Amino acid sequence: MSRNIQVLLCGLFFAAPLGLWREATVAAPASSAPHYTRDGGLAFPASYRTWTFLTSGFDMSYSASMRMDHHMFDNVFVNPDSYADFVRTGTWPDKTMLVMEQRAGQSRGSINKLGAFQREIVGVEVHVRDDARFPGRWAFFAFGPSDRTGTMLPPAASCYACHSDHAAVDTTFVQFYPTLLPIAERHGTLSHGYRSELRDAGSH
Amino acid sequence: MSRNIQVLLCGLFFAAPLGLWREATVAAPASSAPHYTRDGGLAFPASYRTWTFLTSGFDMSYSASMRMDHHMFDNVFVNPDSYADFVRTGTWPDKTMLVMEQRAGQSRGSINKLGAFQREIVGVEVHVRDDARFPGRWAFFAFGPSDRTGTMLPPAASCYACHSDHAAVDTTFVQFYPTLLPIAERHGTLSHGYRSELRDAGSH
Repeated sequence: MSRNIQVLLCGLFFAAPLGLWREATVAAPASSAPHYTRDGGLAFPASYRTWTFLTSGFDMSYSASMRMDHHMFDNVFVNPDSYADFVRTGTWPDKTMLVMEQRAGQSRGSINKLGAFQREIVGVEVHVRDDARFPGRWAFFAFGPSDRTGTMLPPAASCYACHSDHAAVDTTFVQFYPTLLPIAERHGTLSHGYRSELRDAGSH
Repeated sequence: MSRNIQVLLCGLFFAAPLGLWREATVAAPASSAPHYTRDGGLAFPASYRTWTFLTSGFDMSYSASMRMDHHMFDNVFVNPDSYADFVRTGTWPDKTMLVMEQRAGQSRGSINKLGAFQREIVGVEVHVRDDARFPGRWAFFAFGPSDRTGTMLPPAASCYACHSDHAAVDTTFVQFYPTLLPIAERHGTLSHGYRSELRDAGSH
């Protein structure tokens, strides 16, 4: 199962181990600036569930041969100040934090019979822009179950190249954030790679 | 198609016509109290995309025979003050507004190959608690494409009875809101109907 999840998440952010997750996010401090530990880890942004929601994907995969034995939702949140900046400018400011929360999907439960609803968290990843800190301006951090500190993915991890090559705005997958894509289009902030992809596809 | 959507949404909130929807929510005023028109309509809560996200469902249906020719996400938001109250008490205060935004799901697009990501809005419904205004304390309002005012569903509409009989907390489907269900369990605010359902099912 973990190999499948790695394939699934690589192009989104990156892999995180499956497992039950704390649901302690609601009582957390409200600060949305990134905080780091002495050894370069990222402090868990515990209040992210009250940040601005961008989208939720279902069983998304960038590989057509991907097969999973479970369903997965990806909920994406961003700190509110950066969201407001994006609405105004079409791109992200320094110190932006995008949080991707992965939740198991369940089909049958209570009166639901088809489709899927969301259950427990199985992983959280954070994509941080910090111009003074990261040579590539952005970095990915993975949080295992119960972790209060996230581990930075090395710049050679495939997610960096995938985001750099395919993401619509400044290494972020704005093409999957339906309220933000039209704003980026209006501001002319779509990446060269994404615009090339659009031209090759003939439409979006 | 519209009949299928009616079947799909009845148990969630209710039906709304398919169609492209404005994406103008980001620049709207921030007030989260319900406002009504002289003829009893509800003013569109235009800032709901910056409210607190509760969950997103995918192709959910309360009928096992339901068939759709398209994919659908349901994103649910609540006004932040009511969310904070729920975290503290396990139930909703007066003037709570739950917004369900329905978005089309698309599977292939950009580099995505499987599963689904979110596209355009096809409808918005709002579930409002207003004790002084509604004999049943809660009411449902439907917004068609481009509507700035929602129409109240009559109390005889089937959604009222379904929510009253099956919803986990005070006529709201908290069993599908993963951050709130454990809070309601701790506070002992689960409805009689939902607890009976749990007993009948032997687990949840």
